[in-house]
Amino acid sequence: MKADRLITECRLATMTEGGAAYGAIEDGAILIQDGRIIWVGPRADLPEHEAAQIDRLDGSWVTPGLVDCHTHLVFGGNRSGEFEQRLNGATYEEIARAGGGIVSSMTATRAASEDELYASAVARLEGLKATGVTTVEVKSGYGLDRDAELKMLRVARRIGREAGVRVRTSYLGLHAVPPEHRAERSAYVDLAIEDILPAAQAEGLVDAVDAYCEPIAFSDAEVSRLFEKARALGLPVKLHADQLSDGGGAALAARYGALSADHIEHSSEAGVRAMGEADVVAVLLPGAYLMLRETTPPPIALLRRHGVEMAVATDCNPGTSPVASMTAALTLACVQFRLTPEEALTGATRHAAKALGLSDEIGTLEVGKAADLAVWDVTRPAELCYWLGKPILNARYVSGVPV
Amino acid sequence: MKADRLITECRLATMTEGGAAYGAIEDGAILIQDGRIIWVGPRADLPEHEAAQIDRLDGSWVTPGLVDCHTHLVFGGNRSGEFEQRLNGATYEEIARAGGGIVSSMTATRAASEDELYASAVARLEGLKATGVTTVEVKSGYGLDRDAELKMLRVARRIGREAGVRVRTSYLGLHAVPPEHRAERSAYVDLAIEDILPAAQAEGLVDAVDAYCEPIAFSDAEVSRLFEKARALGLPVKLHADQLSDGGGAALAARYGALSADHIEHSSEAGVRAMGEADVVAVLLPGAYLMLRETTPPPIALLRRHGVEMAVATDCNPGTSPVASMTAALTLACVQFRLTPEEALTGATRHAAKALGLSDEIGTLEVGKAADLAVWDVTRPAELCYWLGKPILNARYVSGVPV
Ligand SMILES: [Zn+2]
Ligand SMILES: [Zn+2]
Repeated sequence: MKADRLITECRLATMTEGGAAYGAIEDGAILIQDGRIIWVGPRADLPEHEAAQIDRLDGSWVTPGLVDCHTHLVFGGNRSGEFEQRLNGATYEEIARAGGGIVSSMTATRAASEDELYASAVARLEGLKATGVTTVEVKSGYGLDRDAELKMLRVARRIGREAGVRVRTSYLGLHAVPPEHRAERSAYVDLAIEDILPAAQAEGLVDAVDAYCEPIAFSDAEVSRLFEKARALGLPVKLHADQLSDGGGAALAARYGALSADHIEHSSEAGVRAMGEADVVAVLLPGAYLMLRETTPPPIALLRRHGVEMAVATDCNPGTSPVASMTAALTLACVQFRLTPEEALTGATRHAAKALGLSDEIGTLEVGKAADLAVWDVTRPAELCYWLGKPILNARYVSGVPV
Repeated sequence: MKADRLITECRLATMTEGGAAYGAIEDGAILIQDGRIIWVGPRADLPEHEAAQIDRLDGSWVTPGLVDCHTHLVFGGNRSGEFEQRLNGATYEEIARAGGGIVSSMTATRAASEDELYASAVARLEGLKATGVTTVEVKSGYGLDRDAELKMLRVARRIGREAGVRVRTSYLGLHAVPPEHRAERSAYVDLAIEDILPAAQAEGLVDAVDAYCEPIAFSDAEVSRLFEKARALGLPVKLHADQLSDGGGAALAARYGALSADHIEHSSEAGVRAMGEADVVAVLLPGAYLMLRETTPPPIALLRRHGVEMAVATDCNPGTSPVASMTAALTLACVQFRLTPEEALTGATRHAAKALGLSDEIGTLEVGKAADLAVWDVTRPAELCYWLGKPILNARYVSGVPV
């Protein structure tokens, strides 16, 4: 076999389904050609090959590059001021009245140039990359008008071209009603569905369509209209569902065959069952759970019982989850939600890839998949979930190239 | 003024008491000579000077280098295996029966060479340094015999010489009874007090004496004997107090004029009042609180009411707080314990310095103190508490030298 690169003298957590825990191979090797895995297995079985480059990893563990499948990575400003005000006793209401909350992020995002948005997003991305992320989903939703939504999505695309990660974009126009449309809410919903989404799609900026379904945000009917439009445009959908209350979001996501339903702290068993039947991934967001001091965890036992695949993501955003570490999300998922380390790591690899519609491309170490890898200075995969803040990443490869 | 270095074009969080929040100076400068601050204030007031080196910081915020005043940084092995077993359903009892718990760390620590202990501690220290730490306290307590306790403390001293941080050591012989003494517990207490402590002290390895006071660990009477010995040796004391139950640890610490009482989740108002009267610092450890899923936070309102100064630390240890990020500790202190960002940052600087008996040396930006600094890429100090995992540190200085 002719290969651009041989990766060897390492332990592999292939994260393939069935078989050994973590799909582990104790003494493994990987052959890479044209950015893809062309062979993977025990080193003893390595076929005859000619490799232009050999990377000997001295026993390090190799996992698929981690996939952060739910972020709001691109935004202007930050909300550390509000964070401080709240801890000094201000109520959410007082902060909202002073122009805080999502509106302050919208204002800062509208005011920022593409270069400014890119620079601040990439600074946060450093935290994700330092914790093994090779693919990141990025949502719009702080622009809330055509120009600013498209600007956010262009910045997301630029991150995918220039910042050393694979990017998938989601259009999240139905994130909040912007102040200029408060008096005529339906006009904004029309604009988001009939104008902004098609414009973004025409520019090639949209990989999926997302919405925030919650009494304080958008209704089942409004989201359904958006999802019908997405279907007409041939775009997959996903949903912020049942985060603060059971609004039937899980069932709504299932009805539209969504890639994922995200948060789902308050989903009912009927909703979870519907997710299982429609093969919708549950994206768990333990950073927001921590920061909001939530006390109702997602229904993990129900998710397991109904065979719903669970992903874990940072939800990196300025209001409810200023989290820019993928391994911190894993730790929090284990500690707060009692995921096993194997469930958590599957949730940051195979299941996260599925939540992005990328099951054929990434998420496991298998022949044919992109050679996106993370190399770790650990004695066992569980260490990825155990340490909070210890730097344990040795290297990342995207499409077979160290980055 | 002759100076080795001028630090300028920066914002200063001097963390001095009284005055502006964070002791902030919006456009500040610092003159450093022989490792110490010889002038600090608004740039407009900068005196005539001759500086060998000028560092222009482009508006970055400068704080005192952070002080992690409670860690168990040196240990053999790690307990990610137990972490995983627990999440897979094993009970603490089952794990203890299989040789887990503190005994497994003791076994691995005894088996490790000084070089191995140094290398693994420094790998964890990278997380602390990356989050602005310039001083770290390191405890013994996983050796539990003379050779291994002294070995741990020697490694701690070596970290202070070679790893780019200031180190203060604590002898924590009364951490657990080692298995070889289970049948004759008092013999171990005698050994720890009459043999190991004096030997460590004679070798110059001990800056303070610590103990774990809890029904599952050591009693008031046992700790009192240790503290009497410390007093006779001229060593300050501190205490792991009231973490899991109210065992009167806060009052015990106060009775001996301890530098600090640490954890104190379950301390009574009487204990807190005694701490205030004896000027004992409360060291809050939110990482262990998170990992153990505790539900009783330390009595913050009582601590404020009785004027007890609060510090925040990582408690970096393999069993209950595998946390190696000082800013993560700050975030968790704010989110879980509702400290304000200014309280949290004071707890990682001025109050942490006091908890180590180093108030005259470090912890604020003031003339005469060591020039231990952290430089941050943030818009306001609250960002140190707000982000979880975003790399925000630009530089560290220890004794006036970038490290
Ligand atoms: Zn979200
Ligand atoms: Zn401790």
